Amino acid sequence: RCHHRSPAMLDVPFLPFCAFLGTLGLLCVAMVGTWCQHWRGGFSLDGSSRTFNWHPVLMVTGLVVLYGAAALVYRIPNTWSGPKLPWKVLHSSLALGAFVLTVLGLVAVFCFHNSQGTPNMYSLHSWMGLGTVLLFSCQVGILSGYPPIPLASRVFHPHVLFPQWAAGFGAFLLPWAPTWLRALYKPIHVFFGSTILMLSVASCVSGINEKLFFSLKNGTMEYKLLPAEAVFANTLGLLILIFGVLVVAALARPSWKRPDSDSPDSRQVQDALGG
Amino acid sequence: RCHHRSPAMLDVPFLPFCAFLGTLGLLCVAMVGTWCQHWRGGFSLDGSSRTFNWHPVLMVTGLVVLYGAAALVYRIPNTWSGPKLPWKVLHSSLALGAFVLTVLGLVAVFCFHNSQGTPNMYSLHSWMGLGTVLLFSCQVGILSGYPPIPLASRVFHPHVLFPQWAAGFGAFLLPWAPTWLRALYKPIHVFFGSTILMLSVASCVSGINEKLFFSLKNGTMEYKLLPAEAVFANTLGLLILIFGVLVVAALARPSWKRPDSDSPDSRQVQDALGG
Repeated sequence: RCHHRSPAMLDVPFLPFCAFLGTLGLLCVAMVGTWCQHWRGGFSLDGSSRTFNWHPVLMVTGLVVLYGAAALVYRIPNTWSGPKLPWKVLHSSLALGAFVLTVLGLVAVFCFHNSQGTPNMYSLHSWMGLGTVLLFSCQVGILSGYPPIPLASRVFHPHVLFPQWAAGFGAFLLPWAPTWLRALYKPIHVFFGSTILMLSVASCVSGINEKLFFSLKNGTMEYKLLPAEAVFANTLGLLILIFGVLVVAALARPSWKRPDSDSPDSRQVQDALGG
Repeated sequence: RCHHRSPAMLDVPFLPFCAFLGTLGLLCVAMVGTWCQHWRGGFSLDGSSRTFNWHPVLMVTGLVVLYGAAALVYRIPNTWSGPKLPWKVLHSSLALGAFVLTVLGLVAVFCFHNSQGTPNMYSLHSWMGLGTVLLFSCQVGILSGYPPIPLASRVFHPHVLFPQWAAGFGAFLLPWAPTWLRALYKPIHVFFGSTILMLSVASCVSGINEKLFFSLKNGTMEYKLLPAEAVFANTLGLLILIFGVLVVAALARPSWKRPDSDSPDSRQVQDALGG
């Protein structure tokens, strides 16, 4: 009775909702892959537009779907009691997987631009997208005990990044960080968790919109004539939006949050704050 | 002690936060006006691109800034006790103002397209934007006791819409709706309140991105060369994103929500649900 609860008739059980979200996420991944394979010429590593095609696939898979899965781990009721470490490992593994795909997604678009002589980082889509990835690298960096700014600046040098990162791994993941620091940082991490997902969804839809204007230019394929590719990719954009809205709403839903009093971490935090 | 509270050091007072948000919102309005006036040729009603220029100004002002103000009304601590009707009138007046500007914003872009012979409703931006406005018209329509679908289909006929709307006005605004119905509907209204703002912000940034690709095409003004206009409008897009994220975060923040037990409405709802 201590939590805001919506009326019982509207209570959606978490696990069926998650199954629906998982299906929707997989559909988004399948659709972005189909778009790039069927209409945009497929995939390669030769610096052509077929290299670019990795960019939407990796971003939707990493920065939206896998990221959303990572964000929702602590909403699984099984995580609310018993040892927390296995769930921390799952949360951080999913987030790390999302981060790796995201960095590869950036590499794909920079390689494409550089090999074509196109400038990087001029459109609003690119500013917003890189801002999103920088915020994400701060989340990953702080949580793994690695200073976030060097992490962001070294995203293209995994041989530098990963040994250093592994050395600092787990200041928060493992129970080493002082309680007052975790108490201070946790709401910041939670706030940026949802924020990054909103920004990544906004980046995806602006990117799909931009790509369709670039690609659908001539004759019967013009974007404004709404060929099959445009309908397909517009629909993909709407499904990504729905996925993002549902994940952010699930994260904000009070009755799906871990009850404060059940969590050893929260008890430590309350003690530390004199609550 | 009944609400999730973040540690005291991170508690931001609501009213200074609101003053900051208000300043940021006014800055967004001023910047979108400056962009259209200074770089895009200003405003007119002649069906040219100067008619189009009303579209970004009205959408940012209505669907983002005024909408955000309407959404935050019930987070003002003064609304938590005493009579609720004046605050309902303020919330619905701001929302109605936002809706009128939004509809005029749609009229501007349809007029421009029609007078230029450009098809309407082909880009992902337009699908997402119209979806956002339809959801908004459902919110306004249901709250004012007007069936939402006719409202959405009649957005261009205010002489039909407004008398009918006025006749049904206030099924929820005034305390006429049965308690069980309000209990059922309130969480839906709250969910779509935040969702519509997320969608409208995503629509704005994709629209700004698209407009810059359309407008900055030749010679020294190419978007990829990042002329002053591109830097200015990209910055506007980022400020709109920050505004939207902060409003959605403020709406989700448990300690800024009206304490359930203080609200006569909530007591009615609890009684009706046997809680």
